[in-house]
Amino acid sequence: MSTPDGPTDLVGMRERNLALVLAEIDRSQPVTRARLAELTGLTKTTVSAQVAALTGLGIVSADDPVPGGRGRPGAPVSVASGPIAGLGLEINVGYLSACVVDLTRQVRIRRTVARAEAGDRPQDAVAALANLARLVTRQARRAGLVLAGTTVAVPGVIDGKLVNAPNLRWDALPAADFLSDAIPSRPLPITVDNEANLAALAELWFGAGPGLGDYVHVSSETGIGAGIVVSGALFRGAHGAAGELGHVIVAPDGPPCRCGGRGCLEQVAGLDALLSVAGIRVPAGANSDAATLGTAVPDRPPGAGAAELVRRLEAGDRRALDAARQAGRGLGVALVAVANLFDPASIVLGGLHAQIAPWTTPHIAAALEAGGGRLRGRSPVLRTSEVADGAVLGAAGEVVARILADPLAVARQERAR
Amino acid sequence: MSTPDGPTDLVGMRERNLALVLAEIDRSQPVTRARLAELTGLTKTTVSAQVAALTGLGIVSADDPVPGGRGRPGAPVSVASGPIAGLGLEINVGYLSACVVDLTRQVRIRRTVARAEAGDRPQDAVAALANLARLVTRQARRAGLVLAGTTVAVPGVIDGKLVNAPNLRWDALPAADFLSDAIPSRPLPITVDNEANLAALAELWFGAGPGLGDYVHVSSETGIGAGIVVSGALFRGAHGAAGELGHVIVAPDGPPCRCGGRGCLEQVAGLDALLSVAGIRVPAGANSDAATLGTAVPDRPPGAGAAELVRRLEAGDRRALDAARQAGRGLGVALVAVANLFDPASIVLGGLHAQIAPWTTPHIAAALEAGGGRLRGRSPVLRTSEVADGAVLGAAGEVVARILADPLAVARQERAR
Repeated sequence: MSTPDGPTDLVGMRERNLALVLAEIDRSQPVTRARLAELTGLTKTTVSAQVAALTGLGIVSADDPVPGGRGRPGAPVSVASGPIAGLGLEINVGYLSACVVDLTRQVRIRRTVARAEAGDRPQDAVAALANLARLVTRQARRAGLVLAGTTVAVPGVIDGKLVNAPNLRWDALPAADFLSDAIPSRPLPITVDNEANLAALAELWFGAGPGLGDYVHVSSETGIGAGIVVSGALFRGAHGAAGELGHVIVAPDGPPCRCGGRGCLEQVAGLDALLSVAGIRVPAGANSDAATLGTAVPDRPPGAGAAELVRRLEAGDRRALDAARQAGRGLGVALVAVANLFDPASIVLGGLHAQIAPWTTPHIAAALEAGGGRLRGRSPVLRTSEVADGAVLGAAGEVVARILADPLAVARQERAR
Repeated sequence: MSTPDGPTDLVGMRERNLALVLAEIDRSQPVTRARLAELTGLTKTTVSAQVAALTGLGIVSADDPVPGGRGRPGAPVSVASGPIAGLGLEINVGYLSACVVDLTRQVRIRRTVARAEAGDRPQDAVAALANLARLVTRQARRAGLVLAGTTVAVPGVIDGKLVNAPNLRWDALPAADFLSDAIPSRPLPITVDNEANLAALAELWFGAGPGLGDYVHVSSETGIGAGIVVSGALFRGAHGAAGELGHVIVAPDGPPCRCGGRGCLEQVAGLDALLSVAGIRVPAGANSDAATLGTAVPDRPPGAGAAELVRRLEAGDRRALDAARQAGRGLGVALVAVANLFDPASIVLGGLHAQIAPWTTPHIAAALEAGGGRLRGRSPVLRTSEVADGAVLGAAGEVVARILADPLAVARQERAR
């Protein structure tokens, strides 16, 4: 039974119509006011008033502005490409990353720096992230952009307002307070989310887009995670831990896992397992981006281990091919569970598994076709992500999504200060 | 980004408020109008008007009616226990079932008849179901009930309006037309849904209720399925096939399955696998309710095979215990995938697996604790269903849910005739 959360009132109605008009502009831009009225079912008068309000907020712009005015009524309108923008930050074991995305989802600034390996105190990591945020904020200001809020991607589970990120040695930290004390975010408050979730959303905003339908996005750097997107929104689970694909059991008698189980997907298809089967040894630290320690790099290079694996796969190295086959079969078993339980329209391979997809997808596709494919009739479409650095892009995109979903929030928050 | 599907208008607002008031009565009954105003945030005048409208529709009744009136304004109101009711039907391999549930979700009539084993033409099965529906409708009329609609549970996948039920030899049938021609349903149109989905919803309406949080309900008679309930509604997947738990792979090198895969859960924890490991032979047909062929039975007995298995488990028979251990371990692997991917608050074992739960849950609980439990922090609560015949109950409950979600639909449909 579906009922609204609260009573419907006129103010709420106006705000919803504003968001409705903006969502339609975002979807159909450039679009005229007359067409917006058709698409939304609102009157032309209402649409014109909403467009004027959105233009006043700096969120929408007329494509053919009349000097001193807000464009001819017949001219199409679009989401404004500036000055409002969102800041995405990512904190990971080996690196820190930042990017700025404007309301049209153009990436305006990207910056990644290496950091020392885990062992840092949480506050050291946050201080380093705050430095990066300040740097990028200055750069954005020079580019004429106004940052309206910040989202931080972390490799951990967010349950309510607590963050558990074992790889960062963060244990039940009150994320919002902890981060908002160190990192500026205004007028919108800072938010924090799981990197796999944000990388999954990045696919929607910066990758294949709504054509994916409901999808499961596989994230993989060192570990393996997944983000599940249903009707354009994340499926988070009862405790915020949905999508832990790396700990689906694919070999019940397989090797023990750090999670306490045996034969988890991570143990047969994670980076360490791949390198071990392929016989690739990587100097300590070089496996992650800590290889670039202390240097600012324009774009995060793949880890040395993954790069070497891809080189050997391209050269047809037998052990590397064995590793890919084992990983592909393991992914096949886990993704059959995903297909049978979630029945998504698409499955998108990201990160490391996008890089080695040419060698694993035949095994995955065969598993999906055999494993219940005959019963279901339709198997999910298997795709490879073309989005690099999805987590930090998704973080910035999340700020943009917050603004577009509630365009008055920016003004409300500024008034409240 | 979340936006409403269409423009908000005043008529829609009134209808939503009506549904809002009714949902609150359903949740908090008996409840006074004054309390309803507090709970909904609507004015007392609005609430009184909505309660009067709902009383006029026969959906709500005042607990202390004034002769000729609609109850004192201070008297509490409740959902009416009559005359409006919903008809649930279930068509399965071995039996047909019907039940009538009133708007307070009291079961008023239940009736199950055996039918010949599969091989019937679809229209024969539907004709037999139509006979049962007529019988029960007459019985309901004699009890002073007015049926407002029908929902049919089938063991198959519903994709759009097509039903695929391989066990019934139904292949891409246009369910609504097919069923609505034979089976009366008015004023609300007939609907059809998967038995595992409806059994899962029955848990919400006739079992442990909203306290379950988001949950996954395991259905098992001959095969194994699951229904996934998120925020009180079914999670259906992109093609209506979500919850195919029976085809999650739990033994990658295990026996082949009818789905085309190997080592599916059904192959190690389905009824046939359990009976085979336990060394139980059942005469042909006696394994399902076809054992009671041609006789009307007041309540569907468990299949002979399942009953024998439980007897032997209770007697401590070694082979039966081996079968339960194998099934428990297999369920453990599959439910670890459920816990890691969906992160539900509860997992409910139903059907056959509710009956043998005392012997399988130790294995399942151990698997859930080991398999990622340490990472997640919280494992789903494992429960055993106390609802028998969940699919047909869920079907009738679904009619009630349709009425409560859109109380004007009954009147609208009647006017349209």
